[in-house]
Amino acid sequence: MIKERGLLIVLSGPSGVGKGTVRKELFSQPDTNYEYSISMTTRKPREGEVDGVDYFFKEREGFEKLIEEGKLLEYAEYVGNYYGTPIDYVNETLDAGRDVFLEIEVQGATQIREKAPHALFIFLAPPSLSELQDRLIGRGTESQEVIQNRIAAANEELEMMNLYDYVVENDEVELACERINAIILAEHCRRERVEKQYLAMLKGEK
Amino acid sequence: MIKERGLLIVLSGPSGVGKGTVRKELFSQPDTNYEYSISMTTRKPREGEVDGVDYFFKEREGFEKLIEEGKLLEYAEYVGNYYGTPIDYVNETLDAGRDVFLEIEVQGATQIREKAPHALFIFLAPPSLSELQDRLIGRGTESQEVIQNRIAAANEELEMMNLYDYVVENDEVELACERINAIILAEHCRRERVEKQYLAMLKGEK
Repeated sequence: MIKERGLLIVLSGPSGVGKGTVRKELFSQPDTNYEYSISMTTRKPREGEVDGVDYFFKEREGFEKLIEEGKLLEYAEYVGNYYGTPIDYVNETLDAGRDVFLEIEVQGATQIREKAPHALFIFLAPPSLSELQDRLIGRGTESQEVIQNRIAAANEELEMMNLYDYVVENDEVELACERINAIILAEHCRRERVEKQYLAMLKGEK
Repeated sequence: MIKERGLLIVLSGPSGVGKGTVRKELFSQPDTNYEYSISMTTRKPREGEVDGVDYFFKEREGFEKLIEEGKLLEYAEYVGNYYGTPIDYVNETLDAGRDVFLEIEVQGATQIREKAPHALFIFLAPPSLSELQDRLIGRGTESQEVIQNRIAAANEELEMMNLYDYVVENDEVELACERINAIILAEHCRRERVEKQYLAMLKGEK
């Protein structure tokens, strides 16, 4: 089979939704065949964190140089520290025909949407969707204020998910992982991708 | 969770590719949660075939009346016999929020593409894709004519798959089923679908 360029898979979602837990579960599975893109950060390593495994740890000056040189696919500053995705690793891995998996904040995902519109954008959502209905129309014991807050939160999520291709509820980590893997497998079966492979073969390309 | 209208899943592909085998394997799996739409035909039952299980067997006159009344989602005539999909069963099942699975010939799939453009169209392809490359650039022992025929066949497949959303190679029945199930699961996670559910809930619909 001819190697097409890999897929860039972007997992994001509201903070606290469990992106890191889902990502760790995905990469603990033996048949996961996409590569994790390790983020770069200027924050100090925490107890037990290993450079090149958890993060690439970098001095502030070095990080800013990479920003200037356009060497980051996305970056953001949180609480005085930079976090970003080194672009060279992503491009080299995609060019080799391997899928790359990013787990990042929504701010970073928005930047990637602009630079790499064909990436696969997966929004990890809190289990609010399936629970929301019960809460909204539920037992009628909730105060009007509580219900209003829930509606506001749901509206906020709705707005955020707007740039994503898929929404995966994180009701259970295993189920969320199953859905993410299904989405990636399905994406590889998209007619446009398969068609390209046919055409490349017919042209005698390798 | 609010029940959205079910998905109409159309599996088709060139004759002889193994559509029936894949469909039977899918429906022998215990966790398959979509409904098989049984075709209607005017051909006589074969040994062991059961009305309402393998097909709905119908007289020619009755079938033609259904055509006139617009009661068939698609139909075609092969070797003097009609084959078609009763539309009422499909619509009732979809309205109840259940997915419906059709396994039909490409001619019928083309008719459905016009009537139900939002259905999920899956093309089952012979394993030629992964084998074609070896064959084309292979050992150089094949005659020019054989290679030309293979190229022509690949071009024909390419043209046929044009109206489909996904292409699944039938290299192994189990793998083909896994891909089809991944595509269906992914489709349920598409942002547009999930968004609709959010909006329905926020409007207080059931």
